[in-house]
Amino acid sequence: MAGYHVPPLERLVDKFESLPGVGHKSAQRIAYAVLNMDKADAESFAQAIIDAHEQIHYCSVCCNLTDGDLCPVCRDESRDRSVICVVEDPRDVFALERTNEFHATYHVLHGAISPLGGIGPDQLKIKELLRRVQDGTVQEVIMATNPTVEGEATAMYISRLLKPLGIRVTRLAYGIPVGGDLEYADEVTLSRAIEGRQEL
Amino acid sequence: MAGYHVPPLERLVDKFESLPGVGHKSAQRIAYAVLNMDKADAESFAQAIIDAHEQIHYCSVCCNLTDGDLCPVCRDESRDRSVICVVEDPRDVFALERTNEFHATYHVLHGAISPLGGIGPDQLKIKELLRRVQDGTVQEVIMATNPTVEGEATAMYISRLLKPLGIRVTRLAYGIPVGGDLEYADEVTLSRAIEGRQEL
Repeated sequence: MAGYHVPPLERLVDKFESLPGVGHKSAQRIAYAVLNMDKADAESFAQAIIDAHEQIHYCSVCCNLTDGDLCPVCRDESRDRSVICVVEDPRDVFALERTNEFHATYHVLHGAISPLGGIGPDQLKIKELLRRVQDGTVQEVIMATNPTVEGEATAMYISRLLKPLGIRVTRLAYGIPVGGDLEYADEVTLSRAIEGRQEL
Repeated sequence: MAGYHVPPLERLVDKFESLPGVGHKSAQRIAYAVLNMDKADAESFAQAIIDAHEQIHYCSVCCNLTDGDLCPVCRDESRDRSVICVVEDPRDVFALERTNEFHATYHVLHGAISPLGGIGPDQLKIKELLRRVQDGTVQEVIMATNPTVEGEATAMYISRLLKPLGIRVTRLAYGIPVGGDLEYADEVTLSRAIEGRQEL
């Protein structure tokens, strides 16, 4: 942009461009939208970023995101504490909660074991999970890590730690997604769907 | 999300979702990325929004965005002040500046006449343009509004105001885009390209 620089605008575009899924053109478009907000809206936008950072931290039990000491699930007395569903990411908890079918508790690992990415078991919240199962109330741990190489390896690693403690360790079912098209399902998914077939 | 609410996170997701081109999933992804920033980065992000809002305003001559009194183009003494290129949006100035071929000045309307959208000539920076051409230094006004119904109407409207003042009013050429494929060009563009054909 020979000769044309508006530093505060460029800084704002750079900030938006650094976000995931936002390219240069989108960042420009967003920055102009922010400029077109009225002053109060822009200030409350900036404040929302600061607030989220200051107020959100990990739940002291399940390591999910919360603004209190305990997350809403761990605070909820009606939840079944004998089952823990282990997920990689807080977003996975939101996805599972949306089903309205799951009434037990969660544990968020904040990642998966990935030797290539330099992430080992110590960087995940595995110690916190082991501490939770110490007192004997937990009967089953459902591994709901992603169906990727990293997610599988993490599920395997954790199940080997838990099984000697006499805890039942299960894994989410693999198969064809509901509403999907058999024709477009990949071979691995299809063979897993055949393996896991059930009586009608 | 039955039972699961983290208000500061939801507020942040809502803010991002209100931006153009950002859906709910992207907003969630971005909000998590913001949470994963370190504190200093998040603060400088918030500050960039506030700064852009406080420091950027319209150039007192051409109505483009700037953080000074005049924008860099109007400040530049080497620019040819006898030609004004009229555009709808500040982003159009950036696009034209990137060509490195245009050495005159701009005028930013901040929109186009759109009776359906409730935007009339009074909401655009047309008065400011007329004031600029009063002193007789301007010889030519190039209409570079978008090739849409609204852009065309705006170009027409302005040219009718300027022509009686003895100013030459021109329009950007229509035609097939360089690198485009003739096969995929629409009929209107193609017939405009034939009309505007030039000697080789």
